[in-house]
Amino acid sequence: MSNISVALIHYPITDRAGNIVTTSVTTIDLHDIARLAKTYDLDRFFVVTPNQTQKRLVQRLIGHWMDGYGAKYNPSRKVALELLNVVDSVEEIYDIYKIEGKTKPSTFVTSAKDDRDTLSFSRARIELATNLESLVMFGTGYGLARNLVESADFRLAPIAGIKDYNHLSVRVAAAILLDRLLGDFE
Amino acid sequence: MSNISVALIHYPITDRAGNIVTTSVTTIDLHDIARLAKTYDLDRFFVVTPNQTQKRLVQRLIGHWMDGYGAKYNPSRKVALELLNVVDSVEEIYDIYKIEGKTKPSTFVTSAKDDRDTLSFSRARIELATNLESLVMFGTGYGLARNLVESADFRLAPIAGIKDYNHLSVRVAAAILLDRLLGDFE
Repeated sequence: MSNISVALIHYPITDRAGNIVTTSVTTIDLHDIARLAKTYDLDRFFVVTPNQTQKRLVQRLIGHWMDGYGAKYNPSRKVALELLNVVDSVEEIYDIYKIEGKTKPSTFVTSAKDDRDTLSFSRARIELATNLESLVMFGTGYGLARNLVESADFRLAPIAGIKDYNHLSVRVAAAILLDRLLGDFE
Repeated sequence: MSNISVALIHYPITDRAGNIVTTSVTTIDLHDIARLAKTYDLDRFFVVTPNQTQKRLVQRLIGHWMDGYGAKYNPSRKVALELLNVVDSVEEIYDIYKIEGKTKPSTFVTSAKDDRDTLSFSRARIELATNLESLVMFGTGYGLARNLVESADFRLAPIAGIKDYNHLSVRVAAAILLDRLLGDFE
C-alpha cells in the first residue's frame, strides 16, 4: 500500500482579491483527481471543505458511483472514487492519521510564483520515497492560503509556463505535478 | 513562434463497442487544453468535429471569451482560446498547413495499450525539436480510430498506470503528455 495521499483544498483559499474564502466543489475535479490518484497508486484522496451542503453533495456523488447505477455502468470510476474521503479541514486529515496510529504526513504544496525556497522535482521524488507518510495538497481558486503554504514542509517549484503564462485548472496542474513526482517514463 | 500544434479529435473515434463514432465536444476540455497549449507555447489547438451544430457551439464559446463579457472578466482565457481553431476533419488541418505554405506536420498519437512499435518520450522530444512541423493528436471517447493510430508518423507509449489502471480524462492525459514532451523541470 502506498504511503502518499493527496488533498484538494476548498478552504482556506485565497480569492482574486486576496481574501480567504471557501471555494465550491467541482465534481469534474473529483473524478479527474480520483482517477489520477488511482493511476499513481496513491493511498487516499482527501477533499477538504467545511461546507456541510457540499460535503453531502460529494457523499451523494460517491454513493452513485459506488452503489448506484454508476457502479455497474462504469466500474473504473468506482475503484477511483473508493480512494475519496471528504473532510472538514486539514486538521481533520491529521486526526485521521493519528487515529490510525500513523505518523503525521510530511506536506507538499505548490509554491507561489516567486518563492525562493522551493524543492526541485528530483529532490521531491527522493523525499517521497523516504518519508513515512506524505500528503500533497492542491489549492483551488487563486491558490492555498498563505499560512497553509508557509506551514507546509516542502514547497514545490510552480509549473512554469513558457513566457509566464500560468493559468492551468487544478485538475490539469495536479496531473502534471503527480506525473513529475511519481510518473515512470523515459 | 512554435511549430508544434495539438488536435483534439471527436471523429473518427472508437466507442466502447469498437464502432467508429463522433463524440460530443466538452467545453471543459476546450478550456483546459487551450490553457495547456498556451502554457507550453504551442502554435495552435485544433478541435476536430464534423458536427456542424457542435462547431457553432464552439465558435459561440470562443466569441464569448474573445469579445464578450468573458474577455474582460478573464483575459487569461482569451489569450488561450485565441489558439483554438475548429475544423471538420484531420484532412482540413493538413489543407490549412498547405494553404499557409507549410510542410505537412509529422503526427504523434498515443498508442493503444499493447502496441510494440512505440516511441519513448526522450526520443519524441528530439523529434519535436527537429521536425519542421509537428501535430500531437488526442483522442476522445475510447480513443482514436485504428486507421488514424496506424497512419500516424509516431506512436507514443501510453501513460502507464501503476497496476494497469488507465482511465484518465483526455484533458488530464493531454496535460501529462505535453509535460513529458515539452515540460522544463528537474
